[in-house]
Amino acid sequence: MIQRIPGTTPTRSRAVVHDGVVHTVATSPSKPPSLYEQTRSALATIDKNLADVGSHKSRILRATVYITDMSQKGEMNRAWDEWVDPANPPQRACIGVALEGQDLVEILVTAAV
Amino acid sequence: MIQRIPGTTPTRSRAVVHDGVVHTVATSPSKPPSLYEQTRSALATIDKNLADVGSHKSRILRATVYITDMSQKGEMNRAWDEWVDPANPPQRACIGVALEGQDLVEILVTAAV
Amino acid sequence: MIQRIPGTTPTRSRAVVHDGVVHTVATSPSKPPSLYEQTRSALATIDKNLADVGSHKSRILRATVYITDMSQKGEMNRAWDEWVDPANPPQRACIGVALEGQDLVEILVTAAV
Repeated sequence: MIQRIPGTTPTRSRAVVHDGVVHTVATSPSKPPSLYEQTRSALATIDKNLADVGSHKSRILRATVYITDMSQKGEMNRAWDEWVDPANPPQRACIGVALEGQDLVEILVTAAV
Repeated sequence: MIQRIPGTTPTRSRAVVHDGVVHTVATSPSKPPSLYEQTRSALATIDKNLADVGSHKSRILRATVYITDMSQKGEMNRAWDEWVDPANPPQRACIGVALEGQDLVEILVTAAV
Repeated sequence: MIQRIPGTTPTRSRAVVHDGVVHTVATSPSKPPSLYEQTRSALATIDKNLADVGSHKSRILRATVYITDMSQKGEMNRAWDEWVDPANPPQRACIGVALEGQDLVEILVTAAV
């Protein structure tokens, strides 16, 4: 059994659940020029996606954070540290890449449901 | 029990199955200068890899699409939209990176078997 | 049940286990200018992380290797080929990205426990 939560386009899902694990992704819905603000918004979207399948940030296994400017990583970390459940920290990696348009951050999460 | 499908080099597998989930990867076997064509070929390789372990694109959970030129993302999307099972869209992310040689795209897929 | 192995900062884990699968990450603890040396050290850290949760390199399902200079990929491959269990090769992808500070390589591993 595979559960799929529709995304903004019909050819992708924003969350997919299988065998007690959810795969989800988020960017910031708005595109302010601050990596801190975009990370906060992307993490809030992750919260929503997880809630939609009955999971929660305390159950995240892995997070991969793609950012466009590694020199700004501290701003991402600030939003992360404010948001994360310190009793249940995920395995995390932060990678510098190119993203689309004005996206400064894209976050991939694997969590237990 | 872990099932491994040999790749082109002995130190890597092109698909690995464990507990009902397969991890697989593909680039385009040929290297035309068109991202659309390379994406089509990489997705056809994904189809083959999934079939080799008894899975199918309708059972993909997550796809991460790495491309070398984000300005060409529309060409990747075109190939994706033609290929994807619209009744079962995966969670997908597209990330701009550097790849080897003439590769324009590399696709990582996690699917239920 | 989720098992978390603390990392160097309180807001991240270096390994997380759920349902028989571990997610882990490593960079090289020291930062020599050689990609070969950093890859060797990162893989040794992966060995340690896997051992800490009762897994082993022979049980890796997927490895994603992020490097900062794709022209040096051969040096990463050399360290990989010396290290990998040839009887149990993982699915692997190598991606060129930006990393933090003097990191030349970061390795994400998913393994069966």
